[in-house]
Amino acid sequence: MQRKLKFPLLLIIVLSAFTQSCNTPPPATDTSSRQEVSAVTKDPLPSWNEGATKKSIVDFVTKTTTAGAIDFIPVADRIACFDNDGTLWSEQPMYFQMAFVMDRVKALAPQHPEWKDTQPFKAAIEGDVQTALSGGEKSMVDMLIATHAGTTTEEFNKIVKDWIATSRHPKTNQPYTEMVYKPMLELLAYLRSNGYKTYIVSGGGIDFMRPWTESVYGIPPEQVIGSSLKLKYEMRDDGPVVYRLPEVNFINDKAGKPVGIEQHIGRRPVFTAGNSDGDYEMLQWTSTATGYPRFGMLVHHTDEVREWAYDRTSHIGKLDKGLNDAPKYNWLIVDMKQDWKKLYGFE
Amino acid sequence: MQRKLKFPLLLIIVLSAFTQSCNTPPPATDTSSRQEVSAVTKDPLPSWNEGATKKSIVDFVTKTTTAGAIDFIPVADRIACFDNDGTLWSEQPMYFQMAFVMDRVKALAPQHPEWKDTQPFKAAIEGDVQTALSGGEKSMVDMLIATHAGTTTEEFNKIVKDWIATSRHPKTNQPYTEMVYKPMLELLAYLRSNGYKTYIVSGGGIDFMRPWTESVYGIPPEQVIGSSLKLKYEMRDDGPVVYRLPEVNFINDKAGKPVGIEQHIGRRPVFTAGNSDGDYEMLQWTSTATGYPRFGMLVHHTDEVREWAYDRTSHIGKLDKGLNDAPKYNWLIVDMKQDWKKLYGFE
Repeated sequence: MQRKLKFPLLLIIVLSAFTQSCNTPPPATDTSSRQEVSAVTKDPLPSWNEGATKKSIVDFVTKTTTAGAIDFIPVADRIACFDNDGTLWSEQPMYFQMAFVMDRVKALAPQHPEWKDTQPFKAAIEGDVQTALSGGEKSMVDMLIATHAGTTTEEFNKIVKDWIATSRHPKTNQPYTEMVYKPMLELLAYLRSNGYKTYIVSGGGIDFMRPWTESVYGIPPEQVIGSSLKLKYEMRDDGPVVYRLPEVNFINDKAGKPVGIEQHIGRRPVFTAGNSDGDYEMLQWTSTATGYPRFGMLVHHTDEVREWAYDRTSHIGKLDKGLNDAPKYNWLIVDMKQDWKKLYGFE
Repeated sequence: MQRKLKFPLLLIIVLSAFTQSCNTPPPATDTSSRQEVSAVTKDPLPSWNEGATKKSIVDFVTKTTTAGAIDFIPVADRIACFDNDGTLWSEQPMYFQMAFVMDRVKALAPQHPEWKDTQPFKAAIEGDVQTALSGGEKSMVDMLIATHAGTTTEEFNKIVKDWIATSRHPKTNQPYTEMVYKPMLELLAYLRSNGYKTYIVSGGGIDFMRPWTESVYGIPPEQVIGSSLKLKYEMRDDGPVVYRLPEVNFINDKAGKPVGIEQHIGRRPVFTAGNSDGDYEMLQWTSTATGYPRFGMLVHHTDEVREWAYDRTSHIGKLDKGLNDAPKYNWLIVDMKQDWKKLYGFE
């Protein structure tokens, strides 16, 4: 793992227009996904259409959790890893963390008068996302470090919680936490109810996800693996803090994902879900392990009406190599349009 | 956190004589600590003498787990962190991982003819531990990297398992996994039976601990935090591997411990146990947190008959600042001689 790499490829945001459409009213309540799912008693995956896809998931979970079955897996080894962006929630028209970064640049602008004349900050302050992101990786890194570094763990936690509670997705006008896929929430709950330990293994920032993954996905902070800046412990006048340094610590993407899994979990997963070539190595690391049956799946964004349709040529969530090699590794391709009865909880 | 620091202070091994004494027979069976402890039904801490120390532990666990109590802590936040060397098992006359390193140098010597003429390898091969360790940190790093790097996760796991199953402690002639403190095994089990999630937060190598912590302590690999070398994912002819690079990734000692906790857990612990100044910041990070009551304890090595007696001036497990500041932070000092009825399971 090369820690001194330039910033995540995952953060190469598509330069698509970031158009606002505010037709959908905000939800009345902030429903916890766990509560929704726990009400399901008979069919554990009601938002999945009947068919080969759903059957293969249920068959795998059944055979690996039936005592005495040849494919039985002890509870301790039932490790399931999920990518986040594009797998558990949407990732268009830009990674949601980049929307957070843009908003943070605006919020911090009064403390940085020099940003008015410096790109990409100038464009971000003016709401010109396209220009702000036109500088590629360098612009990303500059804005990410400028908005994330320096803050203590507790300060940043609060900033993220406040943002996620108040911001809205530009297309649906829903809170970002409502842009999670109902079928995937059901799958997480189904796996957990069968003794699987569910992890997030995302290229996104670990500190950006942890403040809300427990209430939204039922995944506690200690089961979230992501990219990170370096941290430092320091004793201050009013007590000790851990705060972020302006230096990349780890990029949990592509070949970094198996490394992140090894660092955090120390076991090879048996069930892994992703949606892009950033998840390729994580699925490969899972599917080539021996001893137990393994399950790899790729969420294929095929629904241009209810969500977005993109794959081989997309700047965000590019899925090309994964589609080519799915048969070789026996990965399940989940066709969002065909396989998902319902996409979001608010539909 | 400075990732490019020279090797851990924790690994500055005392240059004491490494004398062999083979009077104690090896145990008949490889008893799992968890099995032992789970048999306890009434007193959860039978190896602890009655008194203020034991009472303060039981009082804390009771008040934080009694529904409706003012000090009640929800299960999700019941995070307990334990140092390993000197806290869960002995650390004299040298850290057990260094005994492993010495043995690995001998085992790998045939593949490295140049070691016959190169220190510290020459001395290690000849069994002259004192000379091998006399080069200080530089020698440590050289031997550690030479014996740990290059191996894949699966190869190293097997090497550690084989070593821990066959090697013996030089003083007691017991397997190292029998050199664990029975009172601490009981404490781990007691906390877990009260909804606490137990973690190891050690300066020792994460990859050296994970292969055996589950069977010995009941702590799964994903709850082990330690020092590490950098890892790399690579596709080879016979499948993908994750292997160690000859470069330090993270030193989980002193101010690194709160950082390791933040990276892995993302919550501040409520219960933390250590034995040396290497645990100072971890205990400080715990005890200064607000919202819930917190518990910090230091195992004080006071028993020169059943174990070893050392503290302020010891090269291994130096405990000086911790003793000074224990009253300030309300840390419990556990006096091994006074507070522990039984020390090892084989006694």
